[in-house]
Amino acid sequence: MAKVAVLGYGTVGSGVVEVLDTNAQEVAKSAGEAVELKYILDLRDFPGDKHESQVVHDINIILEDPEIDVICETMGGIEPAFTFEKNALIKGKSVCTSNKELVAAHGPELVELAKQHNVSYLFEASVGGGIPVLRSINDSLKHEKIDAITGILNGTTNYILTKMDKEGVGFATVLKKAQDKGYAERNPEADVEGYDACRKIAILSSLMSGKHVNYEDIYTEGITKISIEDFSYARKMNMAIKLLGMCKKNQNGFFTMVAPFLIPLENPLANVNGVFNAIDIHGNMLGDVMFYGKGAGKNATASAVVADVIDITKHKGHHIEVNMKAENAQLSPKDNAVRSFFVRVPENKADEAKEIFGSKIEVIEGENVHGEFAFVTDMISEKDFEDRIKKLDSVKGYIRLY
Amino acid sequence: MAKVAVLGYGTVGSGVVEVLDTNAQEVAKSAGEAVELKYILDLRDFPGDKHESQVVHDINIILEDPEIDVICETMGGIEPAFTFEKNALIKGKSVCTSNKELVAAHGPELVELAKQHNVSYLFEASVGGGIPVLRSINDSLKHEKIDAITGILNGTTNYILTKMDKEGVGFATVLKKAQDKGYAERNPEADVEGYDACRKIAILSSLMSGKHVNYEDIYTEGITKISIEDFSYARKMNMAIKLLGMCKKNQNGFFTMVAPFLIPLENPLANVNGVFNAIDIHGNMLGDVMFYGKGAGKNATASAVVADVIDITKHKGHHIEVNMKAENAQLSPKDNAVRSFFVRVPENKADEAKEIFGSKIEVIEGENVHGEFAFVTDMISEKDFEDRIKKLDSVKGYIRLY
Repeated sequence: MAKVAVLGYGTVGSGVVEVLDTNAQEVAKSAGEAVELKYILDLRDFPGDKHESQVVHDINIILEDPEIDVICETMGGIEPAFTFEKNALIKGKSVCTSNKELVAAHGPELVELAKQHNVSYLFEASVGGGIPVLRSINDSLKHEKIDAITGILNGTTNYILTKMDKEGVGFATVLKKAQDKGYAERNPEADVEGYDACRKIAILSSLMSGKHVNYEDIYTEGITKISIEDFSYARKMNMAIKLLGMCKKNQNGFFTMVAPFLIPLENPLANVNGVFNAIDIHGNMLGDVMFYGKGAGKNATASAVVADVIDITKHKGHHIEVNMKAENAQLSPKDNAVRSFFVRVPENKADEAKEIFGSKIEVIEGENVHGEFAFVTDMISEKDFEDRIKKLDSVKGYIRLY
Repeated sequence: MAKVAVLGYGTVGSGVVEVLDTNAQEVAKSAGEAVELKYILDLRDFPGDKHESQVVHDINIILEDPEIDVICETMGGIEPAFTFEKNALIKGKSVCTSNKELVAAHGPELVELAKQHNVSYLFEASVGGGIPVLRSINDSLKHEKIDAITGILNGTTNYILTKMDKEGVGFATVLKKAQDKGYAERNPEADVEGYDACRKIAILSSLMSGKHVNYEDIYTEGITKISIEDFSYARKMNMAIKLLGMCKKNQNGFFTMVAPFLIPLENPLANVNGVFNAIDIHGNMLGDVMFYGKGAGKNATASAVVADVIDITKHKGHHIEVNMKAENAQLSPKDNAVRSFFVRVPENKADEAKEIFGSKIEVIEGENVHGEFAFVTDMISEKDFEDRIKKLDSVKGYIRLY
């Protein structure tokens, strides 16, 4: 019998309790023994809740209880979650969490702390909701040289971009509707500015490199500048516009970025629509494998937390290796990354654009877009692009090509 | 140090050797110890091959060598592979294989034999090439009540259907081209009649149910009757036509089938094109997760075999549980499955069709298809459909709706 405490009885936390209740038999079969909820930590009381009597307000009751093997931290945010997790690991309790902010900021040191105390620190639910992608990287794909991970990592922005594309409605209108439906937060910056996707690609790129990729070092651009005109051009180009989180190792270095990209429709990532997430992993022998699913949602995310609880229970008394050292990864400067860019300028700037970017640029016509000159550059470095684009005033917008 | 023998130095077998060579360091890190190739069993010699000296022609050299921990059976076919695998397990050697015919026919009894001898029997590479789907079902999703698995499980047929759709060319012409390019076999029945997909859904449904689903009990229909007119209608209906292998548990029973289906374009399976495979798993808490990748190919498939070698090495001395008992699963009769059907009849049969299927049937117009009457039925059972369609002579074709 493994005894579990859940910290935070919000959306994900109550989902974890629901999965443990509903699938008790399957959980026991998978873990090799029954998994029982002992405590729920929350500031609130939950009168009438089935688990009312298990709610406690003091973390120390949990930390001091030798029966507790595993702690599920589903509170979110840095503090007090960070202190609670550290203390739990020091007390010899394994921790699993859905807390992407904390994992992105302190994951590698928490993995090392877990190792020191011969317990485990797992965080499958922090990326891609219920999609079992971290376990695959850490386990069934560990013998691959993974050289690229590319993901649609935020459901809210993917929903907004999909709606803009399919319904031809502008960003602000779609955002407002999404907020009314509860698909987007009242305070939408974390999603629409790409901060959420940034935390997730920080976690993925740390696992890929085995070192800590600090999310603050990742160039991050959101979707607020994307317009319906951009989608008109995209359709003409047989491409979709998606907010991608990516990390890539090649002869030029190790690059990470979050930004909107134009993706050819043949690429399966281009067909990931609505609130769905997808993560493509490229290995040297395997080629591409893509994992697809709902990136959020109470029960899907909770199911991933429970998968970690089971893994920990199966490996009781052992530290489960996670490829993430606390030393900082060496990221290559964004300036050196090479790609093509799609650029829109006013019609009267066409000659100037050709002069600056070369006469061989590919000119693109949009559907029902007039008074503009749009083109795709050759493959150039980000630095080169930045230098040239500065010379062109009144640029209407640009998007990178995947 | 774990020592490995590869049986069959063909496409997959030589891929396994290549993965072990190229990724030796990653394999060792993942397995916790070095993994070394000791023997290759093949009838042929390979003069000049890097591993020439390791080629043997007698299986007993391998079976009698106490140093050999793991055997990779990459020969394919039932015999002698079945006998070799059984003898290996009896001798206390773990076996992993890419051999879908053998796993579909005898997988459950081989799993039980492995358990009796405290070794493991794994077969990740038998479904979906390099896609880590079986391990996910058996491991990270084991605590889910999986109630449906739906897959595009055969790359050749998916390539043919994609070409027919995008290029408007008939089945025979596309097949011929695919054969010329080496994408389809000279003897294409196993692919185009759905037999290959049938083996794979047999394996997946056995894992889902925990019992042996005999592939001979799975209703299997190939793609030979699909015409370019069908794609004209599909486009009008915003659907794609895909050969699906599916298994599903619901209040009516446990159903399995391989057949072409019309799938709404919003469904991610509809956007899986070319030689790619995809497998969608639906769990009670998780909802849908889809795994996508190349379903075949030397190195991808080999990478999955090596993932099994690693898993076995990590669990040396233990049997890795696989949820597949040798007792037969109870399949519900196909007759009871309920769905809608898309039907095409000659124009002069419109009234008759309405009489037989009800006047509320949805009439469909194809792009540039004339002289026909096409419609979609209400939800009816397969039996009911069969009874009614018999009454309509000169049916031009029908396709199930997903």
